[in-house]
Formats: sequence, C-alpha cells, structure tokens
Amino acid sequence: MMKRVGVAILGLGVVGGGTYKILTEHREFYQRTQNVDIVVESVLVRDKKRALKMGIPEENVAGNIAEVIANPNVDIVIECIGGVEAAKDYVLAALHEGKTVVTSNKELICKYSHELERTARRNCCGLYFEASCVGGVPIIRTLLDGVQGNCISEMMGIINGTTNFILTKMAEENEDYGSALKEAQKLGYAESDPTNDVEGIDAMYKLAILSSLAFHTKVPYAKVFREGISSVDKADIAYGKQLGYTLKLLAIGKNTPRGIEVRVHPTFIRNTHPLASVNDSFNAVYLKGDAMDDIMLYGRGAGALPTGSAVVGDVIYAATHSDIKYSTFKNTAAADRETKFVSRF
Amino acid sequence: MMKRVGVAILGLGVVGGGTYKILTEHREFYQRTQNVDIVVESVLVRDKKRALKMGIPEENVAGNIAEVIANPNVDIVIECIGGVEAAKDYVLAALHEGKTVVTSNKELICKYSHELERTARRNCCGLYFEASCVGGVPIIRTLLDGVQGNCISEMMGIINGTTNFILTKMAEENEDYGSALKEAQKLGYAESDPTNDVEGIDAMYKLAILSSLAFHTKVPYAKVFREGISSVDKADIAYGKQLGYTLKLLAIGKNTPRGIEVRVHPTFIRNTHPLASVNDSFNAVYLKGDAMDDIMLYGRGAGALPTGSAVVGDVIYAATHSDIKYSTFKNTAAADRETKFVSRF
Repeated sequence: MMKRVGVAILGLGVVGGGTYKILTEHREFYQRTQNVDIVVESVLVRDKKRALKMGIPEENVAGNIAEVIANPNVDIVIECIGGVEAAKDYVLAALHEGKTVVTSNKELICKYSHELERTARRNCCGLYFEASCVGGVPIIRTLLDGVQGNCISEMMGIINGTTNFILTKMAEENEDYGSALKEAQKLGYAESDPTNDVEGIDAMYKLAILSSLAFHTKVPYAKVFREGISSVDKADIAYGKQLGYTLKLLAIGKNTPRGIEVRVHPTFIRNTHPLASVNDSFNAVYLKGDAMDDIMLYGRGAGALPTGSAVVGDVIYAATHSDIKYSTFKNTAAADRETKFVSRF
Repeated sequence: MMKRVGVAILGLGVVGGGTYKILTEHREFYQRTQNVDIVVESVLVRDKKRALKMGIPEENVAGNIAEVIANPNVDIVIECIGGVEAAKDYVLAALHEGKTVVTSNKELICKYSHELERTARRNCCGLYFEASCVGGVPIIRTLLDGVQGNCISEMMGIINGTTNFILTKMAEENEDYGSALKEAQKLGYAESDPTNDVEGIDAMYKLAILSSLAFHTKVPYAKVFREGISSVDKADIAYGKQLGYTLKLLAIGKNTPRGIEVRVHPTFIRNTHPLASVNDSFNAVYLKGDAMDDIMLYGRGAGALPTGSAVVGDVIYAATHSDIKYSTFKNTAAADRETKFVSRF
C-alpha cells in the first residue's frame, strides 16, 4: 500500500519555490520509485498572489502559521522563510504539534539546534536540515548514513559558491576583487550587501553544522576562526599560481587529540589536490576517515533546484523511514559532553 | 538503552579481514556515536589458523555455515567469501533464517539479486551491498537516500582502480600498456590474470548495479556494452592530450526517452571535466539529476579498509534502521516492469 504524506511549505522564495516545483512535477515519479505519495497540502506566503500565480489552489494558501499547524493533513512542515526569530517560532510550533520539520535554514540550526532537537525528540517527530549545507550535495546524509563507520579526522570544504566564483574569476581572468565581486552581483551569485558571503559568515555556519556531525559533538559557530576574501589581492593569487598553488576560501575542521579546530580562511592548496579544480560557483567537501581514507563530494552549493533537491531528499527520507527521528546525533548524551577546542590563531 | 547487534563474518580475506579490524577497533566508538554495540560473534574461514592469528577467540571460529546460521546471537551475516555459487547458498541460508545480509559481492548481486531480494523480503530481513561498488565511496546510499528526489538522466564513472592506475601511468609517464600493467601487478593493483579488470568485466558488474539503482529498474549486466583497455596505445593517449583530452575507462549509463543505454569503454574526456583529474587508483562517479544538476563522488574504489568501511556502514545502517529491509527498490512492482534498452554499438 502506498503511503500518503502531506507537506506544508513555509515561504515560496528561491528554495521554497524550487521545492514546490520539484514536489509537484515529481509526484507521479515518487509514487512509482519511492512508493510514497507526497502532496503539497498547504503553503504559507507573505504575498498570496505569488502563490496563486504559481498555480497553487487558493484553498491551499494558508492565512497564518496557526492554520498550517492545525491542518491534520500536514505531516511534514518545510521551513524556507529564512531569518531566525519567526522561523524558530514556526518550527517550534510545528514540532510541538508532532509534525516533522525539514529546513534549509543554517543560521536557525546553528543558533537553536539544542532547543529544536529537544523539542523534536520530546514530540517524537523529525528534524532534518540537509538543505542547510552545500545545496544539492547530500553531505549530511553521507556523514550520518554513509561514512558513519569512520572516525573522521579532517574535513576541508569549498562551501560558499559566491566566494569561489569570485576567486575563480580573479585567478582565471586576472580580475581584481572589486570587479570580480561586481560580476558576481550582476549574475545574481552575490547579494548587494555581500558581507555574509565574502567575510566567510555563511561558510562559518555551515562548517559549524558539518563539523558537529563529522566529529559527533556540538561545535558552536562562535568557535570558528573566520577570515573572508575581501582583502585578497590578485597578486597573491598570481604568486601562488607560479608555485603550483590555487587560492580557495576553505572551511577546515580537524579533530585532533588536543581538541577540535575549526576555521574559515583563504588557503593555498596544491594544484594536484582535487579541491583545487573545484571552480566557479561549484562546492565540494573533502573528508579524511580512518577506514575509507579520503573521499570528496562535489556539486552545486546553491540555487532553487539543487537546494530544493536536498529539501525533497529529506522529505522522502522522513516519509520512508520511521526510526531515526532527529537527524543530528544518535547518542545525545555523548554529543552533549564537554568538548575541547583548539585554535592556531 | 543501547542496542546490541551480533555479526558473523564469512571469509577473512582482504575485505573480510578489513571489516573485522574496523569492527573490533571501533566497538567503543560505535557505542558512543551510533548508540549500538556491534559484536563479532562468529567467523567462518577456510584456514582456522588465520582466524586465531588475528586474535579471534577459538569459540568464535565456526566449523561450517550451519553453525553460523544456527547461532542465535548472530543478527547480521557479512558475506566476504567471494565467488558465486557457495556465496549464494550461504546468503540464501542466512536470509531463510531471518538474518540480515551485508555483502561485498558484486557478481553475486548482479547474477542473483532477484532471488536474493525475494528471499529477504519474504523473511523480513535486509540485504545490503554498498561494498559491492566503488569501495569507500558511499554511492549506493547516496543513490537511495541522498539524491532520490531527482530523476537521474546520466551516470559516468571511473569505477575500476586497476585500469585507472594503468591509464594514469601511460598518460603521465608515457609507458606502454604492457609495462604499466606489470607495474600495477607488482604493486598489487592488478591480479596475475588481469582479465577481469582490464577487459572491463568488473566495471560492467558495478555499472549494472549502479544503473539499476539510479534508473529504478533492473539493468542486467548482459545489456552492458563492454570494451576494455588492453588495446589502448600510448599514442592514442598522447594524441588526445595534445587536443586537451584525457583517456579514461568510463562506465556510462544513460536514461533516455528511447530506453536505457549502458556501456563501458575507453573514452576521451575534456581536461576541464572533474573526472579528468581522477588519477591513479582513485574512483569517482558523476551523476546528472534534474533538480540537483551535476554531482560527483570521489574516493578509494578498493582496498581492505575502504571496502570494509562500506561493509560497516551497511552494518550500522541495518542495525539502526528497521524500516528499509532490502536496499534496492522501494517499489518492487515498478522496478520489475519491462525496460527498454538501447545500444549505440
């Protein structure tokens, strides 16, 4: 018998819109391949007209969050409104009502995962956040269910597409930082205020989430050393090139005997390293495990459909697995123990 | 409360030995991080002395398969004996007894997955085979639980380390095929009879498994067009190089409106493609999805610990999930439907 799962989407911006498109266009495909019927039962959106324009029936457009939560047909709530405070209230309200939550909100997870996970656990529902890190690359699922047999000693990631696009332009076309940034803004890769990306804040949040999962302990984002790319000179890049190195904004996590080390900063890597050829807005995460040795996952770190793909992956996982309710730690007691952090700066 | 899971390992060769080492050395680590206590209860090995030398207590060394199957403490049977006929009998015996099976045996899965999966389903136990493809790279878990929201149109893989090592040597050191093969044999990358690797047979099996999962339908290995690397001339490689191309033995699967196309053969790829810089014995799989766009997974395709890492990943997955019993298809009826295959050769 096919399982029927009702979802609500909060926010129809880039990620929410992409998720809606994927879910509706693939409904028959998921029935056939996943044996599950996923139905968008409700959307919550600031501008109702936007929803109607997308072809969403008026009766499925909720007037407020209470209406979404009260809808008995909604099993899973997808949070894509962004920001932190309202998102937190909405997610908590959904969890309190026993609804599983899938979110793409890295800042929310970084700042409130303790409270959110506790609430999920108490109410026996799931909390999933694959889409919060590295868009279409299923790095969180890989850490939880793929490489979990390994003790991971190191993670190195190119996990911000904006800065990678800018550094690629600077390296390949000898542009300076200012003009490469302008081009990124023109193409929609950078926002008009690019601080969050170029100063490494976005990468810092993602590194905190990914290293928590890789190292099985909460890594607060405040522990991440952070330096952005705004003061990188094209002469630095050219100089490295002469010596066989490529400059990348790397997010690095190390699990050492002395403690955990987490940092985001421009780094020279040898041209022969697989991360050196990750260009433009592509992302990649490189992991070292004690059994598997090195692996790398590469793909699109952002965008409506790649990030929507991660949201939908979580929705299907939640719909087809009932055991693992909260995706971060299988052993919460161990994860909550005291962790030592070290800094080289 | 911590779950206790007893496992038996059939065969203590490269993969079985690696698996034993990982499981015993990480026992406390899995208790802490996965909340599960995995205990090696039984091993079956041709040469008993080998087991004793590895420090396995004599009472855990089984005399025959019946003893393993009858052991009530064994929940999961890990098949690493290789070959096909005995492996099939052992796996079926374990499944009939309601024991979940984890195997690294690609030929077994290719030839008998219908029967094995039917038996697993009937007996409500699991059948897992991550370790049958691409060693330490969790490509099967990714296809099932990571990118499952996508309709996958294409897969391109470097999924045989031996041939990739030989082609890398030929390209980088201008060696001819014969001497590169000899070097691979000296280093243990190629067997004394290298047919299985160099003629693409190993890659054919893996492609049949991976494309079945990617395209949600059984792809018989006999449908795979196959050409190996034994007639590749170093002049071909040098010629491609001049034009900006690298020669790789690619395993290609395409899901087209006309049918499924599967083939293994030497292929020129542009140097700028991420697969072009996958060198030596490393493996990689490149996927195109309609939502996530392109992703690539890169890592070690073989070896005791990388392949053992995949076996152990399956063991932990089986121990911590009770919903998904057989890992190939969530909707068996759909997967068994008639499939069209196309050939360009």
